Amino acid sequence: MRYAVLGTGIVGQTIAGKLATLGHEVVLGTRDPEATMARTDLDPYGNPPAAQWLARHPLVRPLSFADAAAFGEVVVNTTAGAASLQVLETAGRDRLAGKVLIDIANPLDFSAGMPPALNPVNTDSLGERIQRTFPETKVVKTLNTMNAAVMVEPSRVAGTHHAFVSGDDTDAKKLVTGLLTEFGWPTGSVIDLGDISTARGTEMLLPIWLRLWGALGHADFNFHIAGA
Amino acid sequence: MRYAVLGTGIVGQTIAGKLATLGHEVVLGTRDPEATMARTDLDPYGNPPAAQWLARHPLVRPLSFADAAAFGEVVVNTTAGAASLQVLETAGRDRLAGKVLIDIANPLDFSAGMPPALNPVNTDSLGERIQRTFPETKVVKTLNTMNAAVMVEPSRVAGTHHAFVSGDDTDAKKLVTGLLTEFGWPTGSVIDLGDISTARGTEMLLPIWLRLWGALGHADFNFHIAGA
Repeated sequence: MRYAVLGTGIVGQTIAGKLATLGHEVVLGTRDPEATMARTDLDPYGNPPAAQWLARHPLVRPLSFADAAAFGEVVVNTTAGAASLQVLETAGRDRLAGKVLIDIANPLDFSAGMPPALNPVNTDSLGERIQRTFPETKVVKTLNTMNAAVMVEPSRVAGTHHAFVSGDDTDAKKLVTGLLTEFGWPTGSVIDLGDISTARGTEMLLPIWLRLWGALGHADFNFHIAGA
Repeated sequence: MRYAVLGTGIVGQTIAGKLATLGHEVVLGTRDPEATMARTDLDPYGNPPAAQWLARHPLVRPLSFADAAAFGEVVVNTTAGAASLQVLETAGRDRLAGKVLIDIANPLDFSAGMPPALNPVNTDSLGERIQRTFPETKVVKTLNTMNAAVMVEPSRVAGTHHAFVSGDDTDAKKLVTGLLTEFGWPTGSVIDLGDISTARGTEMLLPIWLRLWGALGHADFNFHIAGA
């Protein structure tokens, strides 16, 4: 399968790297590929520049958002939630039409400092906004409830735990659940919450996730629904 | 210990019944005890009137909010979130001062229909509002992330799973954790998230809880933090 991963941050790198390891064709979408390759400074979280990561992953090619979206049969949104809608417009409505879009982004709003708030929240969600804005694209929200390393290596967290899928298209959720199986998620560890409006629920897990991260002192944890 | 449980709904009944079974002195606070005892209709959720429950639990006495708060060494808020601040004002600032207030309420807003939204949310929480409004009371938010039956009988849900505590006062959280142990929560199953602002995180679990209830078809489930 041909995947376009939009976003060159730690989530994009982690997802793209795993997809390439699994034998998929992967491109990494970025605003300006030349600028991305030229950048040598750390990102705002202290991670090495995407160019270093790309140099170590020659199978993953950087392309513009538009070229990446044209290439991908499946598109993965790992951009910052506040930028996602604009990035997807840049990627191009026509190039996204008819495709499955896996939305991993969270609409974190850092404008009032830490901890971040969510925007939208409560009566709307980023997943729903993307689905409304791109009605011909099949949006599936998933994996936004955990650390990037856990997304592609669930066995990092001991015991059983869950990934959630939200989306309006049953076949698209089936495809995404299949991909999660490739990532190492055992059968039965993926909970289908329902339509895309259930993305409100998973995006609203972020505030407790951030506080658990603080309380536990590490990010190798995940939500498990006991009794499910 | 003398407990005042404010609210006669299913959560109040469940908590008060368990406390009485454990040998504590318990009163149930309500706006108008005579009216509560006279009511014979089902509540909005189809549950039997509180008077029936009280008739079967003679150890639990109904009192006005003010008399209940005066009686309790520990006060438990199980009222509807939208009414909680007003109920606590009625209970009386002086009668709550210096006491531990266990806040189990969620600020559900049904004004736009189902599913309910939260108000406040995101940049504030009901737990914080109560703490700000009653600075001389030690507010501990807990148990608001699960069904009432699970609160007092955690073994209803197979496997390990978690209760959370949020609050500014360490001793108050210790007292509440001790009560959870009396309720049957094993040592290590209570996660201290930090100060009362972490109540935002647990209140924001409600939207996914409601969707999981729908997806699973039963309420005997709970959040477990794998890797904690």
